[in-house]
Amino acid sequence: MRPDLLTRVLSLLPERSDRPELQAFFAMLRDYPQRGGKGIRSELLLASARAHGALPGTPAWERALWLAAGLELFQNWVLIHDDIEDDSEERRGRPALHRLHGVPVAINVGDALHAYMWAAVWHAQVPGALEEFLTMIHRTAEGQHLDLTWVQQREWDLGEADYLEMVRLKTAFYTVVVPLRLGARAAGITPDERFTAAGQALGAAFQIRDDVLNLNGDPRKYGKEIGGDLLEGKRTLIVLHWLARAPEKQKRVFLEQMHRERADKATAKVAEIHRWLLDSGSIQYAQDYANAQATAGLALLAEALADAPDQNAARELLGQMRELATREA
Amino acid sequence: MRPDLLTRVLSLLPERSDRPELQAFFAMLRDYPQRGGKGIRSELLLASARAHGALPGTPAWERALWLAAGLELFQNWVLIHDDIEDDSEERRGRPALHRLHGVPVAINVGDALHAYMWAAVWHAQVPGALEEFLTMIHRTAEGQHLDLTWVQQREWDLGEADYLEMVRLKTAFYTVVVPLRLGARAAGITPDERFTAAGQALGAAFQIRDDVLNLNGDPRKYGKEIGGDLLEGKRTLIVLHWLARAPEKQKRVFLEQMHRERADKATAKVAEIHRWLLDSGSIQYAQDYANAQATAGLALLAEALADAPDQNAARELLGQMRELATREA
Repeated sequence: MRPDLLTRVLSLLPERSDRPELQAFFAMLRDYPQRGGKGIRSELLLASARAHGALPGTPAWERALWLAAGLELFQNWVLIHDDIEDDSEERRGRPALHRLHGVPVAINVGDALHAYMWAAVWHAQVPGALEEFLTMIHRTAEGQHLDLTWVQQREWDLGEADYLEMVRLKTAFYTVVVPLRLGARAAGITPDERFTAAGQALGAAFQIRDDVLNLNGDPRKYGKEIGGDLLEGKRTLIVLHWLARAPEKQKRVFLEQMHRERADKATAKVAEIHRWLLDSGSIQYAQDYANAQATAGLALLAEALADAPDQNAARELLGQMRELATREA
Repeated sequence: MRPDLLTRVLSLLPERSDRPELQAFFAMLRDYPQRGGKGIRSELLLASARAHGALPGTPAWERALWLAAGLELFQNWVLIHDDIEDDSEERRGRPALHRLHGVPVAINVGDALHAYMWAAVWHAQVPGALEEFLTMIHRTAEGQHLDLTWVQQREWDLGEADYLEMVRLKTAFYTVVVPLRLGARAAGITPDERFTAAGQALGAAFQIRDDVLNLNGDPRKYGKEIGGDLLEGKRTLIVLHWLARAPEKQKRVFLEQMHRERADKATAKVAEIHRWLLDSGSIQYAQDYANAQATAGLALLAEALADAPDQNAARELLGQMRELATREA
């Protein structure tokens, strides 16, 4: 994220305590934000604010920056809890927080960071922003519940529509829909209703692209472990498409591995499944699907921005959105 | 909690979904609130609102009720996460949420409930309430961090001052200080600064009383498992007082058990330690300490309420506070 935004995020978090245990706690609060996330959502929010007429240096821009800080804090507390829920090993090239400090402490750090997110929203003083954050958290939690409950119940009897519903809830709201809407609100403008459908399509494109990169991305650029989704037993469009077409024997091997806990999965078997997926047409299918969603989403977004006050900034926002949906890392 | 308050809490939570998984998720959100908590904090807030002149039926009372609903939602999401962090078995006579649905799902349910708490605060539209809730969450999380980090690092080299600092942060703010302050704010009055010191003393009395009941309470009245704190390796005033005076052999047995994970503790040994504690003077010492804190806290609270608009209600609030600090269950 941009350095001045990181400074703003950190300004909300406590730093020093006379008690060593609390000093350590405060360092944990500051850990994930300082690991250098890309700041995708805050950049989108700021681009939307500009397109809606908020000029850098004005009070509206200051409000947008507080909301952007709130989005970054949201992202960070959710990642701490997600990493526990998925038992991820790494985050942004370092061990996940619960692997450094244990699950109980990490849950509590995430909860405290969640509350600091509301301090950022409060600082913004933007009418309607609190409701936007509530919608974002609720849709994300509902999508997360679908994801978690399918993993826990070993549910693989799912169609592409199930995956898409999960992703629209889990990823699209916090990655695209709400950042677009918050940018408008920071500029004092009621968000265009079409942002929701546009953001759902673009959010799906973004997540499918992420699923593809998780299988075939460049480990030096991609912040998470390549193949991690397979180890965590994640449902993706790629896997669901492949499962519906795979030879019986491969399918059996896959389901047998997916019925095991992460630690009990056979590394060699998972590597074999990874190769089957890479060699199948399912990655191309998912990529084509993501491209179609991106095209539809961008067209809708262009329509929704046709009357935005700053058309140069609106074009920049569209360009930024296009890059996100087709990113390489 | 009083039935109309439960209705208000549940009115904020979603109930129906066409997707069975989300229907189940919504039922999980509603589970802890429906288990019949005592509503201690919300009653205290409402009593404080009355003492500050908020009359039932007025808009100020309506605001107090929304804040009370927020306190109850706070209590419930925190309990879900606490139960995971302490790996508790039971809550209010039923299995803890993570024992019913697994840790990942239960973390996510707690997060969603946390966000619904902010919806209640938003409904109240009380100036300063958001800051009160932020203070409450931060102090509680800091106290929880002390508690968790001592358990995790097997830290027993602690004095009574350490315990009291933990308890003031972890229990006093959300149980007494902030309910008292929110009641004043609902009535449109700036909270008296003495509520903080009074609430810290009364909160310590309340928690020490809870620690005593956890060892010698009536299992039919006390909502948690008797002796659960020992199994969870909790630091209490009783245990710290006893440890400083116990025979070397008992101390060794105690520390040996406390260095084990909950599941690896020897039931017979823990039962023996439980008896040593019951037979020691440490329970009486802690009870006397709690009584002294309660007396000091009540005197301070009476001073702080001397000019409150409704003196009858102020006396009721003091009576309620006295009962809490000396409760039998």
